[in-house]
Amino acid sequence: MKFPSLSIAGRALLGALALAGFAALPAHAQDAAEPAAEAAAAAGDPAFIFNTLLFLMGGFLVMWMAAGFAMLEAGMVRSKNVSMQLLKNIALYSIAGLMYWAVGYSLMYVDVNGYFGTVWPYSWPDAGTANEGDYAVASDWFFQMVFVATAASIVSGTLAERIKLWPFLAFVVVLTGFIYPIAGSWQWGGGWLSEMGFSDFAGSTLVHSVGGWAALAGALLLGARSDKYGPQGQVQPIPGSNMALATLGTFILWLGWFGFNGASQLAMGTNSDVSDVSRIFANTNLAAAGGVIAALVLTQIVYKKVDITFVLNGALAGLVSITAEPLMPSPFMAIIIGAIGGVIVVFTVPLLDKFKIDDVVGAIPVHLIAGIWGTIAVPLTNPDTSFGVQFVGIVAYGVFTFVVSLVVWMIIKAVIGLRVSPEEELTGLDVGEVGVEAYPEFIASRVR
Amino acid sequence: MKFPSLSIAGRALLGALALAGFAALPAHAQDAAEPAAEAAAAAGDPAFIFNTLLFLMGGFLVMWMAAGFAMLEAGMVRSKNVSMQLLKNIALYSIAGLMYWAVGYSLMYVDVNGYFGTVWPYSWPDAGTANEGDYAVASDWFFQMVFVATAASIVSGTLAERIKLWPFLAFVVVLTGFIYPIAGSWQWGGGWLSEMGFSDFAGSTLVHSVGGWAALAGALLLGARSDKYGPQGQVQPIPGSNMALATLGTFILWLGWFGFNGASQLAMGTNSDVSDVSRIFANTNLAAAGGVIAALVLTQIVYKKVDITFVLNGALAGLVSITAEPLMPSPFMAIIIGAIGGVIVVFTVPLLDKFKIDDVVGAIPVHLIAGIWGTIAVPLTNPDTSFGVQFVGIVAYGVFTFVVSLVVWMIIKAVIGLRVSPEEELTGLDVGEVGVEAYPEFIASRVR
Amino acid sequence: MKFPSLSIAGRALLGALALAGFAALPAHAQDAAEPAAEAAAAAGDPAFIFNTLLFLMGGFLVMWMAAGFAMLEAGMVRSKNVSMQLLKNIALYSIAGLMYWAVGYSLMYVDVNGYFGTVWPYSWPDAGTANEGDYAVASDWFFQMVFVATAASIVSGTLAERIKLWPFLAFVVVLTGFIYPIAGSWQWGGGWLSEMGFSDFAGSTLVHSVGGWAALAGALLLGARSDKYGPQGQVQPIPGSNMALATLGTFILWLGWFGFNGASQLAMGTNSDVSDVSRIFANTNLAAAGGVIAALVLTQIVYKKVDITFVLNGALAGLVSITAEPLMPSPFMAIIIGAIGGVIVVFTVPLLDKFKIDDVVGAIPVHLIAGIWGTIAVPLTNPDTSFGVQFVGIVAYGVFTFVVSLVVWMIIKAVIGLRVSPEEELTGLDVGEVGVEAYPEFIASRVR
Repeated sequence: MKFPSLSIAGRALLGALALAGFAALPAHAQDAAEPAAEAAAAAGDPAFIFNTLLFLMGGFLVMWMAAGFAMLEAGMVRSKNVSMQLLKNIALYSIAGLMYWAVGYSLMYVDVNGYFGTVWPYSWPDAGTANEGDYAVASDWFFQMVFVATAASIVSGTLAERIKLWPFLAFVVVLTGFIYPIAGSWQWGGGWLSEMGFSDFAGSTLVHSVGGWAALAGALLLGARSDKYGPQGQVQPIPGSNMALATLGTFILWLGWFGFNGASQLAMGTNSDVSDVSRIFANTNLAAAGGVIAALVLTQIVYKKVDITFVLNGALAGLVSITAEPLMPSPFMAIIIGAIGGVIVVFTVPLLDKFKIDDVVGAIPVHLIAGIWGTIAVPLTNPDTSFGVQFVGIVAYGVFTFVVSLVVWMIIKAVIGLRVSPEEELTGLDVGEVGVEAYPEFIASRVR
Repeated sequence: MKFPSLSIAGRALLGALALAGFAALPAHAQDAAEPAAEAAAAAGDPAFIFNTLLFLMGGFLVMWMAAGFAMLEAGMVRSKNVSMQLLKNIALYSIAGLMYWAVGYSLMYVDVNGYFGTVWPYSWPDAGTANEGDYAVASDWFFQMVFVATAASIVSGTLAERIKLWPFLAFVVVLTGFIYPIAGSWQWGGGWLSEMGFSDFAGSTLVHSVGGWAALAGALLLGARSDKYGPQGQVQPIPGSNMALATLGTFILWLGWFGFNGASQLAMGTNSDVSDVSRIFANTNLAAAGGVIAALVLTQIVYKKVDITFVLNGALAGLVSITAEPLMPSPFMAIIIGAIGGVIVVFTVPLLDKFKIDDVVGAIPVHLIAGIWGTIAVPLTNPDTSFGVQFVGIVAYGVFTFVVSLVVWMIIKAVIGLRVSPEEELTGLDVGEVGVEAYPEFIASRVR
Repeated sequence: MKFPSLSIAGRALLGALALAGFAALPAHAQDAAEPAAEAAAAAGDPAFIFNTLLFLMGGFLVMWMAAGFAMLEAGMVRSKNVSMQLLKNIALYSIAGLMYWAVGYSLMYVDVNGYFGTVWPYSWPDAGTANEGDYAVASDWFFQMVFVATAASIVSGTLAERIKLWPFLAFVVVLTGFIYPIAGSWQWGGGWLSEMGFSDFAGSTLVHSVGGWAALAGALLLGARSDKYGPQGQVQPIPGSNMALATLGTFILWLGWFGFNGASQLAMGTNSDVSDVSRIFANTNLAAAGGVIAALVLTQIVYKKVDITFVLNGALAGLVSITAEPLMPSPFMAIIIGAIGGVIVVFTVPLLDKFKIDDVVGAIPVHLIAGIWGTIAVPLTNPDTSFGVQFVGIVAYGVFTFVVSLVVWMIIKAVIGLRVSPEEELTGLDVGEVGVEAYPEFIASRVR
């Protein structure tokens, strides 16, 4: 992401010029402080409106990704845990919104001292002052808020089928209110990593790796599902219950990603900016396609059959990979970057099993490992960056997020516990935690 | 909703000023009446384009809500009635479009005499005159049309699993062509309630309560499903067949609501307007989140488990609650207003059962009762309104919609009957009315 | 400041003023050739931005149609073939993107000699030159790319439940890289049919019939599913496994079609253009509604029950029918054109069975036959066209696409074969080709 460029003063002067020409302009402006700016605002400044519109459109597209994660995860778990997974996703999206209003936005963006911003006395500026800058503050809040929800969704998928509801939600409160915003302030809030020259356009590291590290910490502490690894430690595949939902979720995420990457341009009030947004759309799509084809060909070669779950994750890994720099690569480079993301998924999913890390939906390969790849690949196409600084950023985010998450998970575990009972795990979390089965008429859900 | 403010004359004047400065403007305008306005239109008036774009974007987002209702309802009924529910939803959306073209739009907006507009000789102005005003007429028609479909969707959910197809569709014809447009004209058409100072920004009452009252009238006349209440009158829970679809539907509705509320600003051609749209987006999201968390916590306390159906309805109730006034509340107030909507759902769903009113998806608590709450709450944050007038409006809409709907339902019942036979209800409406089962390979659908 | 009246020259002047006044303004314009244009680009040309935005919005809506086809087809096949159908859809969308980058776009649009464009040395112009014209080239590429994916999706549906994965994907490579772009260049690339006066606004013929002809060629060569026609040749109905997914897919396609038709206006930088886009939205919706109601009433009359699959296909046929000319018809004519599309579906689906052409989802009636109808209907409302030329275009596209597709299918059949073994067809393609069942916990999938 980059920062809008026109100063408020410059904008006001431009407005004054306009005033001289058209004195009869209607004046509805309620929010601008100075007369000139007021008149400009009243008449409508296309750049301001375009920028705000970009945030609103990008925001609703990324909001839609919450549904994508919900469907993807609901399709990848067994039917006995589907209601729980759905519930976790709608709850985490809601918590993310409330926490990012209460503390997150301010902690990430307001008066950042290099390491974090302002916790109090306010977070999202109130309605009365929401019209400052080159875009409406509320539109920026909305757009940034849906990003924090994405990070939380990643955690949800990895820890599925054995974590209790309330401990999970407790972690989400901390992640979305504090961990993500503090870490985010280092870069997008103008903090120390931004000063150093780190670059992460739309969040391969800030969003996806952060979510992945938090998930990894939880997975280590929580342990694997009881039937995931056999007595000799062999991997026992547990197929997801609904590939149609998983595919739907992937398509939703793909769609939402145009908002995720495209609106991270943060402006479309100039020809140059909107052209950049267009290139980002094209590159984002090409990287995802590269991830799909890489996973398709590779699973055919390695497994002799095309495993659709790898293909879906290949698409997502392609998307995560291009997220750190969706603008500078040529179309061809975008395809390559995405395809390597797809390759990563095919090879790291089995690797996790080696370490007995049970990641139900493959979120760690897709978001953490492909996120690292995408971040490290930035200097390949962006001459203003260096591998060294990218590496520093990756490590900083990894150490901070992993350690703090681990501590938070440990505290939650000590206080209220993390894991459902073995009986409940066997019966399914839908009966135990939610009281509502996802598919009550289909008795097979109780068989497995 | 409010009305855009620039008069056509003012716009023409502006165009003339522009002409004086740049005589060499290209002239593509086909629709404008006067030369000056023609030139302005040819060059492109950003405010006109932004406003129209807002209607188009808002319109497609609200259109998408038709899919949301279809999925929500398909998930909340038993699998033996799923095809029927899907069919009703796509049919009602289509009927709404045709009726709102044939009579509705004109009855609601054209030359309203205080109580209704023009039935004949036209409805939606023809293509040739569609370029007047501050936005394209066709974009406004599209946006208003998807609202009427929403009202009809509400009825569909309540009456599920026992109403016959054609009687339901007959009611939809009357609701979307006459009841909704006449009632709507009182406020959004500039009629008597608007004159009195009633306020309902995006339709907590005009859309959601109207749908709810029509559903209630139908539910009373139709009676409960045969197995909903036992011989001693005890409630027999009938779980929905697919929580994944219900959750998907809720997320779709949440997404669509950004268009529902946001585009009800009716303009985004000024900095002030687009900032208002942004605040509406943020408040809408916060209210929904408030509804989710309220239902989550409350069901945990009351039932010791978190019932996902309450959480989904909590989100929707939060959204309905903020719809009457999504702009004026502070973020904190938006959360509170939405949370109270969530509380309402948890307490009124059991209440309906006390009266043996069988509302399959909980549409009456969500749309009618939370809609009333949202409307009565407007004066809390909007100083231009009063509790008294809000109350008058709520009662007026309630009495009119309920009475007229009841009469229409009675006529339909007398002429063609409303309810499927007990045998068909037992077998399922998919076999009886649609001839196509929703999940033909899953034999469980025939068990219950 | 209102920009309605500013010509590009005036805008450049303003840009120059801005430059003079604010020497410190950042200049991001990288692509404009001349200083004046550069300044204009820096200041932002609303028409350029609006046009580009139309492509981006239209593009993401049409991209979403890929999910619509995936869901529709997944719902219309038996559960034993669902994973395969999902996989084919995400793979074809990816291949379409890569091929349309590698050769398609250039072959269709760059220096078209009347019959095809430039294959080499480039396709989509590189980032450095992406800012020319009245919109960003990358946004146009994105918008055109999603169209070619639509054509490929049509083929996927018809050939479901018996074609092998890799032969299908091989055909998609040829279709999206060569057949579609070459045929497309004749009209949208400014080739010979365009010269002759053929008219196909958004692709009833160029996209939908082309997809339909390619599907028909494949279906003839591939043969019917082994259990579709009995020993005496009687039709054995094979119900789809999931009507909820099929309905969801239809709603997704309906939503996406606003982008498909609306953004085919190719511009919204003037009042006139955005009003046209609005009329297209309204007409598109009305035609779909007409198709729904026609299929609803007709199946009730013919079959005494309302078959939801016909209603869904009625909606799609209505949409295909209006696609050749969504702007000129009055609302009433749009309804009629769409309704005739719905009628076509009801009567041609049984017709195909007469010829033993097994079209699993009804794609040939919906896309090919309704596409022909829509194209032939253009002169009814567009005085600049003639039935004769429309007929020439329809025949030209038919002959070219059908013959070339047949040859390509024959080559693929000869080289690697097209069809799975009878055993695999019985077991289901999910086990045989994909290795992942769509609904592994629901044992019924193995029964049929």
